[in-house]
Order: sequence, then structure tokens, then C-alpha cells
Amino acid sequence: MPEQLAESIVQLALRRGFFNPTAEIYRASAGFYDLGPLGALMKNNLINYWIDTFVKRETSFDVYLIDGSLILPYDALKASGHVDKFTDPMAECKKCGRAHRVDQLIEDVLGLKVEGKSIEELQEIVRKNGVSCPNCGGELAGFKEHHLMFKLSVGGGEETAFLRPETAQNIFLNFKRIAFSMRAKLPFAVAQVGKSFRNEISPRQSIIRLREFSQMEVEVFFSPLRADGPRGFEEVGDTVIRVLTREEQMRGNGEAVELRARDAVEEGIVPNRFLAYYLAREVRFFQSLGIPPENMRFRHLLPEETPHYSGGNFDLEVKFSFGWKEIVGNAYRRDYDLTVHSRHSGEDLSMDDNGVKVVPHVVEPSFGVERILYAILEYSYREGVREWPLLMLPRIVSPIKAVVLPLLDREALTSRAWEVYTALRMSRRPIYVVYDDRGSIGRRYARADEAGANLCITIDFQTLKDNTVTVRDRDNAQQVRVKIDELEEIIFNDMYRGLEGTGGG
Amino acid sequence: MPEQLAESIVQLALRRGFFNPTAEIYRASAGFYDLGPLGALMKNNLINYWIDTFVKRETSFDVYLIDGSLILPYDALKASGHVDKFTDPMAECKKCGRAHRVDQLIEDVLGLKVEGKSIEELQEIVRKNGVSCPNCGGELAGFKEHHLMFKLSVGGGEETAFLRPETAQNIFLNFKRIAFSMRAKLPFAVAQVGKSFRNEISPRQSIIRLREFSQMEVEVFFSPLRADGPRGFEEVGDTVIRVLTREEQMRGNGEAVELRARDAVEEGIVPNRFLAYYLAREVRFFQSLGIPPENMRFRHLLPEETPHYSGGNFDLEVKFSFGWKEIVGNAYRRDYDLTVHSRHSGEDLSMDDNGVKVVPHVVEPSFGVERILYAILEYSYREGVREWPLLMLPRIVSPIKAVVLPLLDREALTSRAWEVYTALRMSRRPIYVVYDDRGSIGRRYARADEAGANLCITIDFQTLKDNTVTVRDRDNAQQVRVKIDELEEIIFNDMYRGLEGTGGG
Repeated sequence: MPEQLAESIVQLALRRGFFNPTAEIYRASAGFYDLGPLGALMKNNLINYWIDTFVKRETSFDVYLIDGSLILPYDALKASGHVDKFTDPMAECKKCGRAHRVDQLIEDVLGLKVEGKSIEELQEIVRKNGVSCPNCGGELAGFKEHHLMFKLSVGGGEETAFLRPETAQNIFLNFKRIAFSMRAKLPFAVAQVGKSFRNEISPRQSIIRLREFSQMEVEVFFSPLRADGPRGFEEVGDTVIRVLTREEQMRGNGEAVELRARDAVEEGIVPNRFLAYYLAREVRFFQSLGIPPENMRFRHLLPEETPHYSGGNFDLEVKFSFGWKEIVGNAYRRDYDLTVHSRHSGEDLSMDDNGVKVVPHVVEPSFGVERILYAILEYSYREGVREWPLLMLPRIVSPIKAVVLPLLDREALTSRAWEVYTALRMSRRPIYVVYDDRGSIGRRYARADEAGANLCITIDFQTLKDNTVTVRDRDNAQQVRVKIDELEEIIFNDMYRGLEGTGGG
Repeated sequence: MPEQLAESIVQLALRRGFFNPTAEIYRASAGFYDLGPLGALMKNNLINYWIDTFVKRETSFDVYLIDGSLILPYDALKASGHVDKFTDPMAECKKCGRAHRVDQLIEDVLGLKVEGKSIEELQEIVRKNGVSCPNCGGELAGFKEHHLMFKLSVGGGEETAFLRPETAQNIFLNFKRIAFSMRAKLPFAVAQVGKSFRNEISPRQSIIRLREFSQMEVEVFFSPLRADGPRGFEEVGDTVIRVLTREEQMRGNGEAVELRARDAVEEGIVPNRFLAYYLAREVRFFQSLGIPPENMRFRHLLPEETPHYSGGNFDLEVKFSFGWKEIVGNAYRRDYDLTVHSRHSGEDLSMDDNGVKVVPHVVEPSFGVERILYAILEYSYREGVREWPLLMLPRIVSPIKAVVLPLLDREALTSRAWEVYTALRMSRRPIYVVYDDRGSIGRRYARADEAGANLCITIDFQTLKDNTVTVRDRDNAQQVRVKIDELEEIIFNDMYRGLEGTGGG
């Protein structure tokens, strides 16, 4: 059943144009996907909604959005530690030649947590326990640290560069420039949305683990001398969050603790108010996207999973059909990045806190776009409600806000429907509307439901008499009759239905 | 003077956060730039306006927006011809080691057009004319074809891939999937916005020639059996376009011919109506962005500049302070791409035109995002109008739609101003508003003008009495008094000022 759901989503995605393997007409490389017409619209809608929520409507501190280069020079990633440490343990099968990620393989086969172990230790575990190639049973060999960054040669070949492994680095590299040009004062934040790249050894599960993926990140910079947190903490701090503590994890598959974000800080579970602020806002954001709070948890990463400099990492995990999976990484990076970049570049990256020079501390929520899109698809997919599959997408991110349909294939109806369609297309509002006159009205409703279109607008014979149309709601298939003049406003307002009070909007 | 303008733009960009070299705190590689807070907002606004114009409001045919992978496999780019032919002629200085693009060097030094010549021919020209290193006067050596694609190794190293050199290829690779999932009929179009990469030998002029850049592209697919063009040609065809014909170019620095898009097709200057349709729409689009028609021309590329398969390429060139430069490439690619991908992949990429199987022909307008941003900055920059520099940005793309200012630093005014600001921030409209209370009101107006903020909203003592504020227009510095309740609507409508009738909106 769980596997069936994942397979249904993939089939729907291919059939209706949400996503497909890159260059699928050739032997495509694993871990690369393209978003088709519906997927691209949905991604744009998600990004716009995220920017709206975490940038434009953020008034607890200033948030500056930047858009940086995907190719970064060697020096920058040497300083950040990625050149030396951004690797996964790998081994190859002697028989079939397939490459495997050794730590994952051990975890899958033996159920052991081995993060943080050296390549020699992992090799020893494989040997002792007789772990073999899951593909052909062959012997594993060639153990080594596999580098996760894609390496490039720039210019005539004299310069080495990499595709960025995270969007965060551009923000640290531009920190001084942004602080100067925006005359920024602490606390302030910088956000970025864009592609990042990791040369994973064995990418899997369609768009869940990709080699090229999109991130929506914020780095909030604050003075380590202050514990009062952001301006908006007063209200947001009351939000209930579910934390899977380290203690619970050590005791096996423990239960998450439910508590208010405010109390999580006071009880020392979450290290500071900026981090707690984002955890709370994430719960509200994903609730507004149709994910029930009980299917979200913040897993406090274990010491061996946490970088040495971190003051605490909390992964927002969501329950998928195949288990819990991270969709947002939250990290308290302290002053690590600014300190190392300051040391390597020679630039002073400190700021002033009422006369005291401080290197700002950083909290980073990092959202994985494709995983979120996939999560939304899983939580929206319904079989058995109607005679066809139904996608009850959150109305704000659904690709199609309305389908305009002539009831029958008669010139009087199609020409009036076309007029209504083109007028809606000219709207200044962000309402994407399509026209469909192919097949019976029932089949067209089915197609609209499967694409997750919020509304269907049908032009019938009564329309020709009184300029009214029927508006059918995707979720309950109910129809109401409205005036054509009101359509633009109705479609627009419908996008925001259910967002009031979630804090996500 | 022209150089001064370019330098003023670069300084303004650094000072106010439009753009800066990537990783500027290190030795940055040439040809990589990051967009800062104002630049990123401006880019987003430009992209949204472009999508609005060329996707959402396009009703002459269906346009599907996709979002594909930046990393493409070897097979796909082998088929497209990029692996074999996407090169520039290069030579290195024996003395200082600097790499040069030989054809450009010959053009700069000798004023000769040498596009299409072989590396041996170029080497001969350099030798005969004694062309030396423009940097140090040293002898040039090591002549070779330099590959413009960035090469990557995927997985354990067994797979070769490239960063895409143009967004177009994803569209051809997904052609069959899109036609199937959208049940598309000819003519239809596919659009894409995203990064592309070219390992230029000597990138220059800040964001004009980059190694990593953004494109906004459309590929329109149509049946070669039909000459009637798109549905909207009737109206759009009347637009006057300026074409620099091949004949004029051969006769030296000729004048562009002015004629209606419709006549350009009938007189055989432009090869078909789909291409003419886009040329006309581009003129309107850029006119709406403040570029006067007389400073735009479509240069018909000479035979030696045109790929063998092309049915005609027309570069939209704009007059910059340093000369005419392409900002949009328009290409009639015929059936080349679908034919080669069909041959290499074994997939049937033909479609049906009333019972006849055809391989669709393609017209491609390809917009360069960073060059357009730079062009807009040059055409918006004013010195001497006020005591400070002024950016008269097109209101639709300006990063800041309004600045909210308390007249003086008094609690009663700042707290009321903050209320007005946060309320506007919560708006569902795409109006980005900032708050500024630092320095005298005059200095704050100056800062707003320099950032190109459309409006300044000032909260003064009268506000406290009657809930009115002053709204100052950037372009004429005039102030009017309005009710706070009307602000959201005023700022929103102001964004579209001047767009009526340009066809760009």
C-alpha cells in the first residue's frame, strides 16, 4: 500500500506533467528530474508562497532576498570546510560494478546507526558481518570517501570551482556587502531560493533524493549577547511543536514530546529563541499546506550526526508513505561560517551590538523544495472518493486555479467560454486559468480533479441569457451559480481559503 | 562619458545592493556575479512580468512553462551538436599566460569580421598582421578550439555530463512528454526561465558577458505546412520593427529599415509569421520597460554567423553606452533539434497536422536576463536632475514599490509609520514596501530615489489627526495627500502606470 501510493504519484506525475526524469528519451542519469508544466507552476506557487511568508510578510526583523551564483570558487569552499569534509563513504561491487553508499547499506542491512564512523571502521563492519552487494550479492571493495561536490574547471582550465552544495554559502560570502548596502542592524536575515548540487552515490525515490535540487533558505544573524529573540516571538512562541529528543531516540523509536516553542527554549531543549521561532513558523506553514501537525516532528540530530560547530540541528521530518523523512533542516550554526570566512579572506565580518564588536550567530532553516512538492502530492492524493483520482492540493500552490469549460461543443458556448477564458488570462492577479473543450463534461471534470485544479467554470445555455456561470469546487464537487463579473475575485479569494489563522499566509 | 555611465552603474550597484562579483571577499573568478537584495527583487519582478506577458497573458497559442535540470547527460548534448561544435577559438600569451578569444581580438585590433573561420585561418591572420597580446604585447601561441561547456563527472565518475549551455535543450528533450501530458496540438509553445552556463574565455563588462547567466526562453512549435501564423498576428502584425538587414551590414554600418512586422514577412525579410510575431511583441515589451524604439534594432545575422540549420537569426540589439549589444536572440531553428533528437534517441517526435505527420518547426526568442537588467539600469539612471543620482526604473520592475517614512524621529510618528508599514507588508498584492527612519527626511528621499523606489509615503503630524499621508512620486518629486486606507490600491495601481497600450503588460 505505501509503495502503491508512491507509484501512483509517479504515474500521475508522468501522465499529467508534474515531473519526469531529465532527458528521459535517452539513458538518463539517476537523480535528475525536470518539472513539467504542472510541476513548474506548482513549484513557482510554492516559492512565491514561501517568499510571501518568510520574506515579504516577515516583520520581526528585516529579511533580504539575494540571488547568487551556483558556481563558487575553490577558495570559498575550502574555507567553509566543504572541500575537505563534504564526503560520503562509498564502495563498489567487485562483480556488478555498482557503487553503494556504505553507511546507508549497513543501516539498511544491519539496522546499525553508523554516522560519524571512519571509512576504515565501516569497512571493518562490512567484512565482519559479511555485508554484500544488494544488487548481485558480490563482494564489496574499493572503500573510499566519495566527494559530494561537482567539480568544474573554469576558463582555460587554471581555476577550480564547484557547484554549490548549499545555497547558504552565497549568503555568508555576501554578508559584508549586504550589511553595508542595506545599512543592516542585528538581528537581520538573508534569504535565498535556488538550485544546489550533491553528487550522491545512489540517488533514489524519484524526486526525494536528487543530485540537483532546489532550496529555500534563510540565515538569520543575531548577537550572541542577547537572548530576547525576534520581535514576533511573543505571539509565535505559543505554537505547539513536537520534538523527538535525543533521549527518546537513544531509547529506540521514541515518541515526540509536545510542547510550546517558548517552553522548548526555557527547558533547554531548543538552544535559542530564533531557532524556536522558525520551528514554530514551520509548523504553521506546513499545516497551511495540508500536513497535519501529528505527522510532523522535529528530530534533534544525534551528536554523531551533528557538525562539530553546531549548537543543535533539528530536522523537520514528515511522515511519508515510506517513513519519516526530512523536509526542512534547521541548524544553529553559531558563528562558525563568518569566523572561518573571516579568517580565510582576511575580512572583518563582525558587527556592532551597542558598542561591542560581535561575530553574529546564525540560525538556518533550509527547506527542500522537491521534497515538499512530493509531500504535498502524497497528502493531496485521494483514490476512491470519485471514480477517478483526485488531487486535493492546497489551493495556494495548486498549478491551475480554474478551468473554463463550455458545457457542449457548440459554437455559441465555445466562443463565449473562450471570451471568459481570455478575459481571466488578462487579469493582473496571480490566477492561472486554462481552457478545456475536449471530450464530455464528465471527463473534463475528471481531468481537472486529477490535475488538482481548484475550480471548474462551466459556460452553459443559461450563460448566454444572463451572464452567469457555474463554479464547481474540486473538493466537494458542489456547484454554485455566479455572475461572470465576479469570477476574477472569486478565483483569487479562493486561493487563500483556509489560510486565515494558520499563520502560514 | 559612456564609460563613465557604465562605471556609475557599477558603483551604484555595489553601493545599493544590485549586484557584486561572486565571492568578492576572495579572489573571485571573472564572469560570475551575485544579485544583491535590490537586484534579486528586480530580477524576480522582471521574470514575473515576462511570464505574465509571454506565458500567462498569451492567448494566441498555449504556452507551457517547464523547469528542467541544469545538468544534462552527454548523450543529449552530443545529439544537439554541442559536444562537437560549441567552441570558441583561443590562444594564450607566451609571456603573461593570459588566454584570449582570438576572433574577438582580431575584430578589436584589425576591425575584421572573422566569424566562421577555422582555427588555422585565424592563426594565419594573427601571424600575418602581427597581432599580439593586448595585455603585455607578448606573442600568442597555443591556438585551439576552446570548449564552452562546463564538464562534470556524475556518480562514481562513470558518467559524463555538462551544465546546459542554453535552456532550450530541456524543452526539446521533454517535447514528447509535454505534448502527451498536455494533449497539445500545433501550434503550441514551451517556455523556460533559468540558468545557463558558458565557459567564456574572457568574460567582460560586469553582468553583460557572464559565465553563468539567466535566460527566459520560448520555443514555439508549429506545422511547416501552414503559413498563417499565430491567432494574434492580425493585431500584433501592425507593430513597426527596425531591421538591420544583411545588405545594410555588408554596406558598412548601415541604417535599420523601419517597417511593419506584417510587411517584413511579406517582403521576405523575416522568414515567417511566428518569428515576426515575437519581434513585434519584443518591441512592445521593451518599450514598456523604458527603452525607446529607436534604440532597438533587429540585426539579421550574416550567413557566417548563422548555424547551418537556421532559417534566419535576428538579434534584438539595444544601444548601450558602449555600443549596440544583443539582449534577445531570435532564431528560426526549423526542425533541426527535434530531428536530431529523434534520430539519436530513436523516439518519434513528429506530430499530426490534420492527418499529415510533420516534424514541427521551431521559432525561439531567447532573452538574456542580466543584460536586460543592465540595460534597464542604464536607461533609468539620471544625474543632474536632483542633487543625487536618480533611478527612474520602470515601475513594474523596480525592487521597492514604496518606502514608508516617519517625518521625524518622534515616537508618535515612528509607531504610526511602523503600523502603516506592517499593514502594507501583509498585503496579498505583490507590492514590496520598506521602512526607513534613519537620517533626515531629505537624505531618506535621496536614498529612495537612488534605489529607484516608486513612491515615498510620509507619516507626519497631520497623519495623527486625520489618517492621511503624503505620497511622493519618484519621477517628479511631487507630493499628494491621500487616506491611509487607499495606500495599498494606490501602490498597486502605480506599478502598472504607463503599461496600458504598450502591449507589454
